[in-house]
Amino acid sequence: LQDGDVNLFESGACLLHLAGKSDALMPRDDVGRAETLQWLFAALNSVEMVAVPWWFVGMSGQGDNPLEPWVEKRLGQLERVLAEREWLAGGRFTVADLLMADVLRVPKVRAFGDRPATEAYVARITARPAFEAAYGEQIAQFAAADAVRGTTSN
Amino acid sequence: LQDGDVNLFESGACLLHLAGKSDALMPRDDVGRAETLQWLFAALNSVEMVAVPWWFVGMSGQGDNPLEPWVEKRLGQLERVLAEREWLAGGRFTVADLLMADVLRVPKVRAFGDRPATEAYVARITARPAFEAAYGEQIAQFAAADAVRGTTSN
Repeated sequence: LQDGDVNLFESGACLLHLAGKSDALMPRDDVGRAETLQWLFAALNSVEMVAVPWWFVGMSGQGDNPLEPWVEKRLGQLERVLAEREWLAGGRFTVADLLMADVLRVPKVRAFGDRPATEAYVARITARPAFEAAYGEQIAQFAAADAVRGTTSN
Repeated sequence: LQDGDVNLFESGACLLHLAGKSDALMPRDDVGRAETLQWLFAALNSVEMVAVPWWFVGMSGQGDNPLEPWVEKRLGQLERVLAEREWLAGGRFTVADLLMADVLRVPKVRAFGDRPATEAYVARITARPAFEAAYGEQIAQFAAADAVRGTTSN
Protein backbone atom coordinates (compact mmCIF):
# COMPACT_ATOMS: atom_id res chain seq x y z
CA LEU A 1 0.00 0.00 0.00
CA GLN A 2 1.31 3.43 -0.89
CA ASP A 3 -0.31 6.45 0.74
CA GLY A 4 1.71 9.67 0.53
CA ASP A 5 4.97 9.09 2.42
CA VAL A 6 3.72 5.81 3.84
CA ASN A 7 4.72 2.54 2.18
CA LEU A 8 3.33 -0.59 3.75
CA PHE A 9 3.40 -4.35 3.39
CA GLU A 10 1.40 -6.88 5.52
CA SER A 11 -2.38 -6.94 4.89
CA GLY A 12 -3.16 -6.39 8.57
CA ALA A 13 -1.02 -3.24 8.72
CA CYS A 14 -2.51 -1.89 5.46
CA LEU A 15 -6.07 -2.47 6.65
CA LEU A 16 -5.39 -0.89 10.03
CA HIS A 17 -3.81 2.11 8.31
CA LEU A 18 -6.95 2.51 6.16
CA ALA A 19 -9.24 1.95 9.16
CA GLY A 20 -7.46 4.81 10.94
CA LYS A 21 -8.72 7.14 8.21
CA SER A 22 -12.44 6.44 8.45
CA ASP A 23 -14.81 5.37 11.22
CA ALA A 24 -16.69 3.38 8.55
CA LEU A 25 -14.10 0.67 9.19
CA MET A 26 -13.35 1.15 12.91
CA PRO A 27 -15.32 2.78 15.73
CA ARG A 28 -13.60 5.76 17.33
CA ASP A 29 -14.55 5.08 20.97
CA ASP A 30 -11.97 3.23 23.11
CA VAL A 31 -14.03 0.09 23.66
CA GLY A 32 -15.20 -0.27 20.04
CA ARG A 33 -11.70 0.39 18.78
CA ALA A 34 -10.18 -2.19 21.15
CA GLU A 35 -12.77 -4.82 20.15
CA THR A 36 -12.00 -4.19 16.49
CA LEU A 37 -8.25 -4.55 17.09
CA GLN A 38 -8.76 -7.74 19.06
CA TRP A 39 -10.83 -9.45 16.35
CA LEU A 40 -8.57 -8.21 13.56
CA PHE A 41 -5.63 -9.90 15.31
CA ALA A 42 -7.77 -12.98 16.03
CA ALA A 43 -8.48 -13.33 12.28
CA LEU A 44 -4.77 -13.26 11.45
CA ASN A 45 -3.09 -14.81 14.46
CA SER A 46 -5.68 -17.28 15.83
CA VAL A 47 -7.60 -18.41 12.73
CA GLU A 48 -5.41 -17.80 9.66
CA MET A 49 -2.29 -18.88 11.56
CA VAL A 50 -3.83 -22.34 11.85
CA ALA A 51 -5.95 -22.53 8.70
CA VAL A 52 -3.25 -21.67 6.15
CA PRO A 53 -0.59 -24.12 7.46
CA TRP A 54 -3.37 -26.76 7.80
CA TRP A 55 -4.25 -26.24 4.13
CA PHE A 56 -0.56 -26.32 3.17
CA VAL A 57 0.20 -29.53 5.09
CA GLY A 58 -2.97 -31.08 3.62
CA MET A 59 -1.75 -30.26 0.10
CA SER A 60 1.52 -32.07 0.79
CA GLY A 61 -0.61 -35.20 1.20
CA GLN A 62 1.21 -36.99 4.05
CA GLY A 63 -1.49 -39.16 5.73
CA ASP A 64 -3.06 -37.55 8.80
CA ASN A 65 -2.76 -33.79 9.06
CA PRO A 66 -1.44 -33.04 12.57
CA LEU A 67 -2.91 -29.52 12.39
CA GLU A 68 -6.50 -30.74 11.86
CA PRO A 69 -7.60 -30.88 15.54
CA TRP A 70 -6.25 -27.36 16.02
CA VAL A 71 -8.12 -25.91 13.03
CA GLU A 72 -11.31 -27.69 14.16
CA LYS A 73 -10.95 -26.19 17.62
CA ARG A 74 -10.45 -22.63 16.35
CA LEU A 75 -13.30 -22.79 13.83
CA GLY A 76 -15.56 -24.30 16.52
CA GLN A 77 -14.75 -21.45 18.93
CA LEU A 78 -15.55 -18.91 16.24
CA GLU A 79 -18.81 -20.67 15.34
CA ARG A 80 -19.98 -20.26 18.95
CA VAL A 81 -19.17 -16.53 18.83
CA LEU A 82 -20.89 -16.02 15.48
CA ALA A 83 -24.00 -17.91 16.63
CA GLU A 84 -24.58 -15.05 19.06
CA ARG A 85 -23.76 -11.95 17.07
CA GLU A 86 -23.98 -10.60 13.55
CA TRP A 87 -20.65 -8.71 13.53
CA LEU A 88 -17.48 -9.31 15.55
CA ALA A 89 -16.87 -5.87 17.09
CA GLY A 90 -18.77 -2.78 18.13
CA GLY A 91 -22.16 -4.17 17.07
CA ARG A 92 -21.60 -3.32 13.38
CA PHE A 93 -19.45 -4.10 10.33
CA THR A 94 -15.77 -3.23 10.88
CA VAL A 95 -12.38 -3.97 9.35
CA ALA A 96 -12.25 -7.02 11.65
CA ASP A 97 -15.18 -8.58 9.75
CA LEU A 98 -13.57 -7.72 6.44
CA LEU A 99 -10.42 -9.60 7.43
CA MET A 100 -12.12 -12.51 9.22
CA ALA A 101 -14.39 -13.13 6.23
CA ASP A 102 -11.37 -13.09 3.95
CA VAL A 103 -9.71 -15.78 6.06
CA LEU A 104 -12.89 -17.87 6.25
CA ARG A 105 -13.98 -17.62 2.61
CA VAL A 106 -11.11 -19.86 1.42
CA PRO A 107 -13.02 -22.73 -0.28
CA LYS A 108 -11.15 -25.47 1.62
CA VAL A 109 -11.96 -23.82 4.98
CA ARG A 110 -15.56 -23.12 4.00
CA ALA A 111 -16.12 -26.73 2.94
CA PHE A 112 -14.55 -28.18 6.09
CA GLY A 113 -17.10 -29.24 8.73
CA ASP A 114 -20.59 -27.85 9.30
CA ARG A 115 -20.78 -24.41 10.88
CA PRO A 116 -24.06 -22.71 9.93
CA ALA A 117 -23.44 -19.42 11.78
CA THR A 118 -19.99 -19.05 10.18
CA GLU A 119 -21.37 -19.89 6.73
CA ALA A 120 -24.13 -17.28 7.12
CA TYR A 121 -21.53 -14.72 8.27
CA VAL A 122 -19.27 -15.35 5.25
CA ALA A 123 -22.28 -15.22 2.90
CA ARG A 124 -23.46 -11.96 4.54
CA ILE A 125 -20.09 -10.26 4.11
CA THR A 126 -19.27 -11.49 0.62
CA ALA A 127 -22.75 -10.30 -0.51
CA ARG A 128 -21.96 -6.69 0.50
CA PRO A 129 -21.85 -4.42 -2.58
CA ALA A 130 -18.35 -3.20 -1.56
CA PHE A 131 -17.04 -6.78 -1.48
CA GLU A 132 -18.64 -7.59 -4.84
CA ALA A 133 -17.15 -4.46 -6.41
CA ALA A 134 -13.63 -5.16 -5.05
CA TYR A 135 -13.82 -8.82 -6.03
CA GLY A 136 -15.07 -7.93 -9.52
CA GLU A 137 -12.15 -5.53 -10.00
CA GLN A 138 -9.63 -8.13 -8.87
CA ILE A 139 -11.01 -10.76 -11.25
CA ALA A 140 -11.04 -8.22 -14.10
CA GLN A 141 -7.33 -7.50 -13.46
CA PHE A 142 -6.52 -11.21 -13.55
CA ALA A 143 -8.52 -11.61 -16.76
CA ALA A 144 -6.71 -8.66 -18.36
CA ALA A 145 -3.31 -10.12 -17.36
CA ASP A 146 -4.33 -13.50 -18.82
CA ALA A 147 -5.40 -11.82 -22.07
CA VAL A 148 -2.01 -10.06 -22.39
CA ARG A 149 -0.19 -13.31 -21.66
CA GLY A 150 -2.34 -15.08 -24.27
CA THR A 151 -1.42 -12.48 -26.89
CA THR A 152 2.34 -12.44 -26.19
CA SER A 153 2.61 -16.23 -26.13
CA ASN A 154 1.01 -16.55 -29.56
CA LEU B 1 -5.48 -7.18 29.31
CA GLN B 2 -7.81 -5.05 31.37
CA ASP B 3 -7.43 -1.27 31.19
CA GLY B 4 -10.40 0.71 32.47
CA ASP B 5 -13.40 -0.15 30.27
CA VAL B 6 -11.22 -1.98 27.78
CA ASN B 7 -10.91 -5.78 27.97
CA LEU B 8 -8.65 -7.35 25.40
CA PHE B 9 -7.42 -10.73 24.25
CA GLU B 10 -4.84 -11.37 21.48
CA SER B 11 -1.24 -10.39 22.29
CA GLY B 12 -0.95 -8.22 19.18
CA ALA B 13 -4.04 -6.19 20.12
CA CYS B 14 -2.87 -5.81 23.75
CA LEU B 15 0.58 -4.62 22.67
CA LEU B 16 -0.85 -2.19 20.15
CA HIS B 17 -3.22 -0.83 22.79
CA LEU B 18 -0.27 -0.26 25.13
CA ALA B 19 1.85 1.21 22.33
CA GLY B 20 -0.92 3.74 21.70
CA LYS B 21 -0.33 5.09 25.20
CA SER B 22 3.37 5.87 24.96
CA ASP B 23 5.75 6.85 22.18
CA ALA B 24 8.39 4.75 23.97
CA LEU B 25 6.85 1.79 22.13
CA MET B 26 5.70 3.39 18.87
CA PRO B 27 6.79 6.57 17.06
CA ARG B 28 4.07 9.17 16.63
CA ASP B 29 4.92 10.31 13.09
CA ASP B 30 2.98 8.68 10.22
CA VAL B 31 5.94 6.92 8.62
CA GLY B 32 7.42 5.60 11.89
CA ARG B 33 3.99 4.47 13.06
CA ALA B 34 3.28 2.67 9.77
CA GLU B 35 6.68 0.93 9.85
CA THR B 36 6.02 -0.23 13.40
CA LEU B 37 2.58 -1.60 12.45
CA GLN B 38 4.00 -3.37 9.43
CA TRP B 39 6.71 -5.18 11.39
CA LEU B 40 4.39 -5.98 14.28
CA PHE B 41 2.08 -7.74 11.80
CA ALA B 42 5.07 -9.36 10.09
CA ALA B 43 6.14 -10.88 13.44
CA LEU B 44 2.70 -12.40 13.96
CA ASN B 45 1.45 -13.13 10.48
CA SER B 46 4.60 -13.82 8.44
CA VAL B 47 7.01 -15.34 10.99
CA GLU B 48 4.98 -16.77 13.88
CA MET B 49 2.29 -18.02 11.49
CA VAL B 50 4.88 -20.34 9.98
CA ALA B 51 7.18 -20.99 12.96
CA VAL B 52 4.52 -22.19 15.43
CA PRO B 53 2.77 -24.68 13.11
CA TRP B 54 6.25 -25.85 11.95
CA TRP B 55 7.17 -26.53 15.58
CA PHE B 56 3.81 -28.25 16.17
CA VAL B 57 4.07 -30.50 13.10
CA GLY B 58 7.67 -31.32 14.06
CA MET B 59 6.49 -32.39 17.54
CA SER B 60 4.01 -34.80 15.96
CA GLY B 61 7.06 -36.57 14.50
CA GLN B 62 5.75 -37.63 11.07
CA GLY B 63 8.88 -37.89 8.88
CA ASP B 64 9.58 -34.80 6.80
CA ASN B 65 8.00 -31.58 7.99
CA PRO B 66 6.25 -30.02 4.97
CA LEU B 67 6.44 -26.58 6.62
CA GLU B 68 10.25 -26.60 6.88
CA PRO B 69 11.06 -24.90 3.53
CA TRP B 70 8.55 -22.16 4.37
CA VAL B 71 10.04 -21.44 7.82
CA GLU B 72 13.54 -21.46 6.30
CA LYS B 73 12.45 -18.95 3.68
CA ARG B 74 10.86 -16.57 6.19
CA LEU B 75 13.77 -16.71 8.66
CA GLY B 76 16.19 -16.17 5.76
CA GLN B 77 14.29 -13.08 4.60
CA LEU B 78 14.37 -11.69 8.13
CA GLU B 79 18.10 -12.42 8.48
CA ARG B 80 18.78 -10.27 5.41
CA VAL B 81 16.77 -7.41 6.93
CA LEU B 82 18.46 -7.69 10.32
CA ALA B 83 21.93 -7.81 8.74
CA GLU B 84 21.32 -4.20 7.65
CA ARG B 85 19.64 -2.60 10.64
CA GLU B 86 19.64 -2.75 14.41
CA TRP B 87 15.88 -2.28 14.94
CA LEU B 88 12.96 -3.10 12.63
CA ALA B 89 11.11 0.22 12.53
CA GLY B 90 11.75 3.94 12.93
CA GLY B 91 15.48 3.48 13.59
CA ARG B 92 14.96 2.58 17.26
CA PHE B 93 13.42 -0.02 19.60
CA THR B 94 9.62 -0.32 19.18
CA VAL B 95 6.82 -2.70 20.07
CA ALA B 96 7.56 -4.45 16.74
CA ASP B 97 10.99 -5.52 18.09
CA LEU B 98 9.43 -6.63 21.35
CA LEU B 99 7.06 -8.93 19.49
CA MET B 100 9.50 -10.12 16.82
CA ALA B 101 12.06 -11.05 19.48
CA ASP B 102 9.40 -12.93 21.39
CA VAL B 103 8.59 -14.99 18.28
CA LEU B 104 12.28 -15.60 17.52
CA ARG B 105 13.49 -16.43 21.01
CA VAL B 106 11.64 -19.80 21.05
CA PRO B 107 14.53 -22.26 21.62
CA LYS B 108 13.57 -24.50 18.68
CA VAL B 109 13.51 -21.51 16.30
CA ARG B 110 16.73 -20.05 17.71
CA ALA B 111 18.55 -23.38 17.31
CA PHE B 112 17.36 -23.92 13.74
CA GLY B 113 19.93 -22.93 11.10
CA ASP B 114 22.66 -20.32 11.35
CA ARG B 115 21.56 -16.70 11.25
CA PRO B 116 24.11 -14.48 13.03
CA ALA B 117 22.28 -11.16 12.57
CA THR B 118 19.04 -12.65 13.93
CA GLU B 119 20.86 -14.24 16.86
CA ALA B 120 22.55 -10.91 17.73
CA TYR B 121 19.15 -9.17 17.48
CA VAL B 122 17.48 -11.66 19.86
CA ALA B 123 20.42 -11.42 22.26
CA ARG B 124 20.29 -7.60 22.13
CA ILE B 125 16.59 -7.46 22.95
CA THR B 126 16.51 -10.16 25.62
CA ALA B 127 19.44 -8.37 27.35
CA ARG B 128 17.41 -5.17 27.77
CA PRO B 129 16.76 -4.43 31.47
CA ALA B 130 12.98 -4.20 30.76
CA PHE B 131 12.97 -7.68 29.23
CA GLU B 132 15.01 -9.12 32.08
CA ALA B 133 12.67 -7.57 34.66
CA ALA B 134 9.51 -8.84 32.91
CA TYR B 135 11.01 -12.28 32.38
CA GLY B 136 12.15 -12.44 36.02
CA GLU B 137 8.63 -11.57 37.20
CA GLN B 138 7.07 -14.22 35.00
CA ILE B 139 9.44 -16.91 36.24
CA ALA B 140 8.84 -15.82 39.86
CA GLN B 141 5.08 -16.24 39.33
CA PHE B 142 5.59 -19.72 37.91
CA ALA B 143 7.86 -20.60 40.83
CA ALA B 144 5.29 -19.31 43.35
CA ALA B 145 2.54 -21.36 41.66
CA ASP B 146 4.76 -24.45 41.75
CA ALA B 147 5.46 -23.88 45.45
CA VAL B 148 1.71 -23.65 46.22
CA ARG B 149 1.07 -26.80 44.20
CA GLY B 150 3.90 -28.57 46.05
CA THR B 151 2.37 -27.59 49.42
CA THR B 152 -1.19 -28.60 48.59
CA SER B 153 -0.17 -31.93 47.09
CA ASN B 154 1.75 -32.92 50.24
